[in-house]
Amino acid sequence: MFNIDFEPIGRRGQCSADQSLLESARELNVDIVSICGGVGTCGHCKVQIIAGKVSKLTFEEQGELSAREQEQGYRLACQTFPLSDVKVHVPPESLTAPQRTQVEGLEVDVVPEPPVRALEIQLTAPTLASPVPDDVNLLTALGIPDGSIDFHLQQNLSRQLRDLNWNLSVALRGDEIVALAAPGAKWVGLAVDIGTTKIAAYLVEMETGKTLASRGQMNPQISYGEDLVTRIVAASKNEEGAAKLQSLLTEALNQLAADLCAETGLSTDHIVEAVVVGNTAIHHLFLKLPVKQLGLAPYVPATRAAVDIKAREIGLKLAPGAYLHLLPNVAGYVGADHVAMLLATRTADATQTTLAIDIGTNTELCLNHNGHLTSASCASGPAFEGAHIKFGMRAAPGAIEHVLLENDRLEIQTIAGETPIGICGSGLLDIVAQLRLNNIIDKSGRMGAHPRVRKETVTEFILVERPGQDPITISQKDVRELQLAKAAIRAGIQALVMAVGLTETDIEQVIIAGAFGTFIDVGSAVTIGMLPPLPLDRFSQVGNAAGTGARLALISTTQRAKAAEIARRDGYIELASVPNFQRKFAEATNL
Amino acid sequence: MFNIDFEPIGRRGQCSADQSLLESARELNVDIVSICGGVGTCGHCKVQIIAGKVSKLTFEEQGELSAREQEQGYRLACQTFPLSDVKVHVPPESLTAPQRTQVEGLEVDVVPEPPVRALEIQLTAPTLASPVPDDVNLLTALGIPDGSIDFHLQQNLSRQLRDLNWNLSVALRGDEIVALAAPGAKWVGLAVDIGTTKIAAYLVEMETGKTLASRGQMNPQISYGEDLVTRIVAASKNEEGAAKLQSLLTEALNQLAADLCAETGLSTDHIVEAVVVGNTAIHHLFLKLPVKQLGLAPYVPATRAAVDIKAREIGLKLAPGAYLHLLPNVAGYVGADHVAMLLATRTADATQTTLAIDIGTNTELCLNHNGHLTSASCASGPAFEGAHIKFGMRAAPGAIEHVLLENDRLEIQTIAGETPIGICGSGLLDIVAQLRLNNIIDKSGRMGAHPRVRKETVTEFILVERPGQDPITISQKDVRELQLAKAAIRAGIQALVMAVGLTETDIEQVIIAGAFGTFIDVGSAVTIGMLPPLPLDRFSQVGNAAGTGARLALISTTQRAKAAEIARRDGYIELASVPNFQRKFAEATNL
Repeated sequence: MFNIDFEPIGRRGQCSADQSLLESARELNVDIVSICGGVGTCGHCKVQIIAGKVSKLTFEEQGELSAREQEQGYRLACQTFPLSDVKVHVPPESLTAPQRTQVEGLEVDVVPEPPVRALEIQLTAPTLASPVPDDVNLLTALGIPDGSIDFHLQQNLSRQLRDLNWNLSVALRGDEIVALAAPGAKWVGLAVDIGTTKIAAYLVEMETGKTLASRGQMNPQISYGEDLVTRIVAASKNEEGAAKLQSLLTEALNQLAADLCAETGLSTDHIVEAVVVGNTAIHHLFLKLPVKQLGLAPYVPATRAAVDIKAREIGLKLAPGAYLHLLPNVAGYVGADHVAMLLATRTADATQTTLAIDIGTNTELCLNHNGHLTSASCASGPAFEGAHIKFGMRAAPGAIEHVLLENDRLEIQTIAGETPIGICGSGLLDIVAQLRLNNIIDKSGRMGAHPRVRKETVTEFILVERPGQDPITISQKDVRELQLAKAAIRAGIQALVMAVGLTETDIEQVIIAGAFGTFIDVGSAVTIGMLPPLPLDRFSQVGNAAGTGARLALISTTQRAKAAEIARRDGYIELASVPNFQRKFAEATNL
Repeated sequence: MFNIDFEPIGRRGQCSADQSLLESARELNVDIVSICGGVGTCGHCKVQIIAGKVSKLTFEEQGELSAREQEQGYRLACQTFPLSDVKVHVPPESLTAPQRTQVEGLEVDVVPEPPVRALEIQLTAPTLASPVPDDVNLLTALGIPDGSIDFHLQQNLSRQLRDLNWNLSVALRGDEIVALAAPGAKWVGLAVDIGTTKIAAYLVEMETGKTLASRGQMNPQISYGEDLVTRIVAASKNEEGAAKLQSLLTEALNQLAADLCAETGLSTDHIVEAVVVGNTAIHHLFLKLPVKQLGLAPYVPATRAAVDIKAREIGLKLAPGAYLHLLPNVAGYVGADHVAMLLATRTADATQTTLAIDIGTNTELCLNHNGHLTSASCASGPAFEGAHIKFGMRAAPGAIEHVLLENDRLEIQTIAGETPIGICGSGLLDIVAQLRLNNIIDKSGRMGAHPRVRKETVTEFILVERPGQDPITISQKDVRELQLAKAAIRAGIQALVMAVGLTETDIEQVIIAGAFGTFIDVGSAVTIGMLPPLPLDRFSQVGNAAGTGARLALISTTQRAKAAEIARRDGYIELASVPNFQRKFAEATNL
């Protein structure tokens, strides 16, 4: 038997050497498209082998896969058998149901003050009597004789002016012309939140600030390392590693931009500005900044300042002179996405003592007390993403996301209402809370007796019986994993409030941001002690606030300046240097 | 018999199908290196076929030429026979003697105010207690917390800071850091004058303004069109044409920069700024700006404003954040080199009525009268470069450059004192002046009787008898060509002074700039009526003033601002629109 790992959905299990990857996927309820019934002729079950050895390419595959695909390790799942532990990437088009990504977030009302303005202008053609140079002609007509024209735009300017018969729509950023088009052009911007696992992209009309379309997809870097540390190591090892991790993001963003434009009937030439946020490591990988020092104490970022460069500098294909703006970082593990979240949630403006929290593999915290911002970061680990959990998986159809246990009655809710195949983060939280409330596990997390608890090789609680298949369970070890994850968060909150001379009960408002935070039951989180025991009405769940922050910075120069101010004001504390942090952490493992 | 044209030296003649290119070169006194005696084994006589058909590749050539060379049309001159009229490019390494290029120019004393300053700094390494981001660390230590770091430099910053153990030399442009190195680094700049036929490059120490080294070479575009119109057509035809003409210049500049650095023991990483000047067409071709409109009335430039971009934007390999600055243009045929010339010659500051003139295929004029600058451009044609002249050639060893005829005594001076092989521009001017002074040609240019005049198929004056070879002569047709060229210049001067309400005698000072202008005999030029009949002490010859202007703009922000002001102040007039210009031109053909 070998271990098999289907990415990016994070479904792990066992398979035998005589089981094709397609059969293993079915057993693990990973729904891969197959039309021909597994005889290698429909070409729909394409997967990519990321790690491990598999059987040789079959005759059928040679017909179905291009030379390029073969080079990149693509195979037909129905034709391929494992020869070792394997890690398999399932591309979106090979999945029957799309994975859940979070693009919805706060809608915050701000008056658009776009960095790029639209102007319509009719020029006079030059004559022998008045042979006005093209740049002078355009800039003078716009009333900015000392203005400038983006160099790439300038390289086509003379042609464009004549093709448009001297009648045009101009996109102006400050006093630099960044794009030209026929009159009536609609200039748009791209806001992107690149998460460690997911990307959310928004196409926004610059003038009105209206979001025209949005899309989510998985971060393609995930196949090269689920956690950031693996990616940092890969990018630090050699130039190709860094270039590959960078280009994966550029390609994904170019594709997202093209898709969003296709959806709205626009052209990527009309995207005149982009704002990107992400955690510090993602920010650095995206810009191909050095990351080695991020992985070593004292974990300093290469850059804290906001980055404002031509989008083409990193290969983004937008309007010729479009800029790419990245919000500032705060520290090595508190990045631009955190700043965006603080911007969108108005945390910095709060008059109450406010804790803003974004839960993930890495959990960022920020406390505003009397206008003083203090941030910290906790290594909560990938348990919420399904890693190290026996039936763990990411939020995809069939994942158990909510659970209610009353005496012996177990209610289970799955994503998309499908047959349960695993447990995602919010489900895990609910399950442990319910087990604790029903005293099936004690304060220390030890699992006791219950009709659903079986103690064979491992001690586990049976969630779903499946005829002919192993039941879906949560094991004693899974409970321990969750305890470690939640203790990291809780100890972080405690250390943070202590550092500013408060106790947890002084927190008047808790803002929970992020995709995972949106779907958790706050009551469960409080029950297991992941969040402090405050009245539930002090908590609010705001969705993908980082994406909203990116949109705000995209359409408003005031909001962009505010983000810079937040990053400057934000005092970062390193939890490792807080006295007794390890003891706090140990205590916080209790349920 | 076929016509053969050896470029870039511009030697033209006839050859027969049974003569190898090497034999033809020898007959035309083009000195191509050959060690093996023409048996195809030494590989030294490499030439590139630019146009025309030649014999098939021989077995010997397959051994001596790389696949890439074969693709690019390289051949061994001794193995190749013409099958049609041919145009052959002789690379510098295949010539026994280098061609004369002009790099020397005015040395003007200005106090350096370099756009890039050098600073030495010792940083404090970050710690867990104070995990200062690298950008903040550097900018704060430099006292410019709101400063910026070039993006490409930023991409290596963290590595560099650690490699240099936080002890460094910084190149600062405004408040942007453009390069970093070990303490004690010498930051330099590159000033380049790209002419239609020649390139002059200077390596200058930024802090002192001292020229450390200089080099000249032919403009490699010459093989793709001797005159600008051919290059404009080639660049307008398709994207590849424009890209090829652009990359030829980038490659040449990268090579010049590398050679200059090798000569001075520096690295191109230390070149923190470049200033380039050239005529408007060269300026546009170098930046890959559209040129189609330059070739059509009303001949407007795509851009008049100074261009200030990252050097990398067009492929220059200098310091990571180095900028490339191009001085402004004035009009379609009055470019940045003209502005540089005006800057170096102080024409704009002159209190006397001053005419500055740069003679070439295109001759630019500028008149300063009472502080008002007026420029014009005349199409003087390529006769001075040797084109359309039977024995014409460029200024290379063996070219007749000065001539004195007293009665029957003819004194001839050649470049480098070598056996005469042809006539360059200054020689042509002298010959016609001497013929006129000796009444061998009349006012209209008609050649009369003289012992050295022979009237066979053509009427010509014998300059050099060569046993076993045709004598070197100047023909009636050659005289006519020169009359057209000089008339264009003289009519231009007359139209220009008339346009500002003056006559030629009001000109108090004439500044003659440019390589060709350096070598001419002003007396001859006045004799033939190319220049107005003013006292000879009103004329000064200043050499490559455009190159000097580029150096001034490189090391002084005040000089750069002055160049921008000159371009703004300079009123351009189109000679074609001056009343009676054609009549003036016809009259000016008289000697």
